[in-house]
Amino acid sequence: MVRRAVVLLSGGLDSAVVLALARRDWDEVYALTVRYGQRHVIEVECARAVARDAGVREHRVLDVDLSSWGGSALTGDGEVPKDRATPDATNDVPPTYVPARNTILLALALGWAEVLGAGAIYIGAHTQDAGGYPDTRPEYLEAFERMSALATRAGLEGRGPRVLAPLVRMSKAEVIATGRSLGVDFAKTSSCYDPLPSGAPCGRCDSCRLRAKGFEEAGAADPRSG
Amino acid sequence: MVRRAVVLLSGGLDSAVVLALARRDWDEVYALTVRYGQRHVIEVECARAVARDAGVREHRVLDVDLSSWGGSALTGDGEVPKDRATPDATNDVPPTYVPARNTILLALALGWAEVLGAGAIYIGAHTQDAGGYPDTRPEYLEAFERMSALATRAGLEGRGPRVLAPLVRMSKAEVIATGRSLGVDFAKTSSCYDPLPSGAPCGRCDSCRLRAKGFEEAGAADPRSG
Repeated sequence: MVRRAVVLLSGGLDSAVVLALARRDWDEVYALTVRYGQRHVIEVECARAVARDAGVREHRVLDVDLSSWGGSALTGDGEVPKDRATPDATNDVPPTYVPARNTILLALALGWAEVLGAGAIYIGAHTQDAGGYPDTRPEYLEAFERMSALATRAGLEGRGPRVLAPLVRMSKAEVIATGRSLGVDFAKTSSCYDPLPSGAPCGRCDSCRLRAKGFEEAGAADPRSG
Repeated sequence: MVRRAVVLLSGGLDSAVVLALARRDWDEVYALTVRYGQRHVIEVECARAVARDAGVREHRVLDVDLSSWGGSALTGDGEVPKDRATPDATNDVPPTYVPARNTILLALALGWAEVLGAGAIYIGAHTQDAGGYPDTRPEYLEAFERMSALATRAGLEGRGPRVLAPLVRMSKAEVIATGRSLGVDFAKTSSCYDPLPSGAPCGRCDSCRLRAKGFEEAGAADPRSG
């Protein structure tokens, strides 16, 4: 039997590493990118390039416009913070949090996984550096998996997908080292929350700063900013 | 403080009753209709009429195309069963099941609920007559609520929404009686899984048959088929 996995692919660095891990461990990998109204559509172009590189069986881009109700700096509601210390010492939920985003992404992946008969859903969540997002924590991801076992026909039949977040306890530097060992081309990934009109990273948002810190700690050069 | 609730509104009979219950019990009600690629877009027109009737604060229609990966007779994959006994004696998951549908709908409602600061999400799930759908059962809905308390900023702060399914243990006849007592205009609702080109109900799918049986047992005439 062909073993399948669905990977949530944003076009950022983390999900590119998760995709490489899934490709290593599963027969067929299906990548799902959700265009949810984020300002940085450059990520979707990156997702396409990363999916092509990884040789996924299929890559789908699905639209669901969460910017219609706002509530996040990532979907155009307010400013993306710049030049903050990383990690944010306050550990507050940052303005770039998108309400229920990972629940929406995982729910969509759960639907496709059931149609495919997939055994796993991968998500690039990790918390070590970027505290404050409620829906990247292990206890949340475990609760989603428990719920999903009751939610679908596959779950009722005892073959619902695992929810796997292999990066969840890694630092950004460990994520980068893992990706390098698997041959991920980070030049094709985009992490910036607020890219310049050219698509180049701003270099000042939380995500750019975490990425730079991660490459520094991993002792590597970022091919994207290079 | 204004007490708000979000109601998932399909345009069918059940969610119209749930909306009336929410309007009775909350200060401001927000209705969310998701156009997920179902064949019966007539439901969306009905949802608009029902929302208007109920005097909701705001009604949003969100698109997310689940027909792209299929897996359900409701989104065009295979035939909608006709002339079956109701309830289906086999209790199998019916072909009109949409993979992870209620999880996707509830996840979207959870996002909007957080933006609004809503205290409840209502869903018209009920199981008594229409066995077989995994994501209408109380144990599933409770698991979703537990997961949601970990998923959002509101949840972390102890003010995440309740997930309320007030019809969950009612028969269709009880749902209809409840709606009648609250003045719901059932003429504005559409339950059919496979309407005629005119928008009229087919009268033969599971949903039409359950509706007819419900009105009969409630001792009432269905204003839509009359």
